[in-house]
Formats: sequence, structure tokens, C-alpha cells
Amino acid sequence: MTLDLCSREPVCIATNDPLAAAAALISARQNTSAKRLGEPAPSGQQLRAVLGLAAHAPDHGALNPWRFVVVPMAERFRLGEAFARALADRDCGATSQQMEAAREKAQRAPLLLLAVLRAATPGSSHIPDSERLVCLGCAVQNVLLGAQALGFGSGLTSGQAMDSAHLRAMFSLAESERAICFLNIGTVQSPRPSRERPRLEDFVSTL
Amino acid sequence: MTLDLCSREPVCIATNDPLAAAAALISARQNTSAKRLGEPAPSGQQLRAVLGLAAHAPDHGALNPWRFVVVPMAERFRLGEAFARALADRDCGATSQQMEAAREKAQRAPLLLLAVLRAATPGSSHIPDSERLVCLGCAVQNVLLGAQALGFGSGLTSGQAMDSAHLRAMFSLAESERAICFLNIGTVQSPRPSRERPRLEDFVSTL
Repeated sequence: MTLDLCSREPVCIATNDPLAAAAALISARQNTSAKRLGEPAPSGQQLRAVLGLAAHAPDHGALNPWRFVVVPMAERFRLGEAFARALADRDCGATSQQMEAAREKAQRAPLLLLAVLRAATPGSSHIPDSERLVCLGCAVQNVLLGAQALGFGSGLTSGQAMDSAHLRAMFSLAESERAICFLNIGTVQSPRPSRERPRLEDFVSTL
Repeated sequence: MTLDLCSREPVCIATNDPLAAAAALISARQNTSAKRLGEPAPSGQQLRAVLGLAAHAPDHGALNPWRFVVVPMAERFRLGEAFARALADRDCGATSQQMEAAREKAQRAPLLLLAVLRAATPGSSHIPDSERLVCLGCAVQNVLLGAQALGFGSGLTSGQAMDSAHLRAMFSLAESERAICFLNIGTVQSPRPSRERPRLEDFVSTL
């Protein structure tokens, strides 16, 4: 059974094989570079529904150790400046072309979200950052799958700017917070064949 | 629209709302403590299908920075010994009752998988462990959702034994690898009401 999840046409499927339905959704999701994501983006209502799925991620200790920040188009210029300043901080010899490329990165996907980790602090729960990052990953995957179910493409981006003072200031991150990655979501402009995935024997063994 | 994903009965759903179908799967997944997971476990074929979903997680740099190890019942006694020794190492005053409780933890869910991080090394890719842990989280979530689609319950467990020399030796972890969490999967013996989830306004803001 295959299920075209990009189709807006009603299709009737027999859910006596719910794993096949889940597999169709999960395997349809693939990385789309932010450059290839255009309008339309999810509507406000769709975005709320998709982000709501993050709340169902596993969460050891019910800490909710992550949050998302929407970066609207009106703030992209400022984000580009933060990227450019972060580049200048770590490479004082960056060319104007490199600075422009850093700025341009902020202008790509029509929907841009920053995923922020609420890290452990001396006074906080004993649950370590490694587990908090796994929780964040689960939440991110739920969001990506929700976007995929609506027919939108997505891609994660990050880089050396994530820990820069400029980015931290722009997003008003608390001392215990860390910017982990951006979620880029939009309509795939030029679909690409899916990449080869690791085989089961590459990542599963039995003790 | 609600979709009872535990039902093995064929149900016809209109997939003109694929987000609702994804949301039904994702929100049906909740933590079940390993104590409340019993037989039957997924069959070998089901396990292969579910673990195959991990391969569709985002993977910056195609590093496949995680792997899973199945811990069969025949190895649970040995795992319990590793848990007990890890406890003794960090608390030389542990009582025999505490040691027995540590051992018993290895005997719970009928299907037990260890998720292992392949961490960054000085010679490896620049992609940091924080991103690798997010990838691992995405892979774990795909596995949990696959198990849920088949009607199985699941729960993640971890603890201070994860970094112990005894556990590392038992799983033959490479120096660059870290045991992150166990995935417990099985049939829910006593369903519980779902816990309250964070509200959107608790974890989403706009810049």
C-alpha cells in the first residue's frame, strides 16, 4: 500500500495496516535545502496544529526542555545581520561576498523556526543535556512529520553562528538556553530523488 | 476524526486530512513504564520494519550518528548484573535490596533496545554531538511511532548506569560511542490516561 501524502485529494485507505501508513509518512519526509523551499508556507492555523505535535514528544521528567521561536519575514534582515556579525567575529578576514552569503541564508524558507534547548543548570533537574537533546529531537521530528503530512517540505540547518553572542542576543536566550537548529519549512520548488538510506545491518545489532 | 491505532480492525479513513491521521498516531504515543509492558513483543518482522523507520531521520552530513542494539531475554541477567555493578561503583553503601532493584530493571519490557550515540571525535566530521543527539532523537521518535502504529506501547529509560564501565564493556562500545537511552517496547498491560501536555504558548513564541 502506498499513500501519496502530498495529495490534497481524498483517498480511502484501509487502516488494517497502520504501520504502512506511518511508514509512508515517515519515509516521504526527506531533507529539502532551504533554497528549494518557497511559498506557500503553512497557514497560521496549520502552523499551530503542526507545532502542537511537538508537545507529544517523550519528555523525561516533564521538563519540556525545548522551545521554538518563529522568525517572521520582517525579522529576517536582522537575522541576516546576526549571521554576518557571527561570521566576522570568527573570521576577521571574511570577504564581503562571504558576508553577503551569510546574510542571504536568513532569507530562504518562508517559514523559519529556531529550536532552543533548555539545558540543565546547577539548580535544575538531574536530567542531563544529552537526554534533553534527544527530547528536542523527538519534538522536532514530530513537527517535521506534521509538515510533511500537510504536503510541505522541510530541512534542518545550523552552523557556527548558533552559539554566537549576536544570535543569542537576538533571540534573548537565557544563560541556560542554547540555539540548536533552525527548522525551514515551505513548498518544495524542485523535488529531488530521495537519498539512499542506511541499511538495517548498518545500525542494528543484537547482543 | 479519531483513529484507533490500537485496533487491528480495518477502518476506512478519508486521507483528505492526512495531518489528522499523523496527529492521531503522534498523540496516541505516550510513555508507558517498562513495568507495564508485557508480552507479546513485536515479531522479528515487525521489529525490522519498525527499526527501518529510524533510517529516515534527518541526518546532517549523512553520518548515521547512532545505532541500536537489541538486548534479547537471554542477555537480561547479564544486563542486570551490569546495572547492579554500576550502582555498587557509585554507591558502595548500596543495600542488597537496592542491588536487587537494579538487577530487576533489566527484566522488564519484552523488547529492549539500547540507543547508542556515535559521538564526534577529533578526526571526525565537525558536526557536534548536540546535532548528533538531535538526529538520534528523531530516529528514536520514528521507532516509537512505528511501534505505536502496530499497537505496541513504549517507554524510554536511562539513568546513571548508562555511562558506567560495566555497561560500556557489555555493549562493546567504542571510545567515541555513548549509551544514551533504552527503548522499552511491548504490549501495554494496564493503560493509563494520557498526561497533560504543555500548551502551545508554553513553548512557542514569535520574534
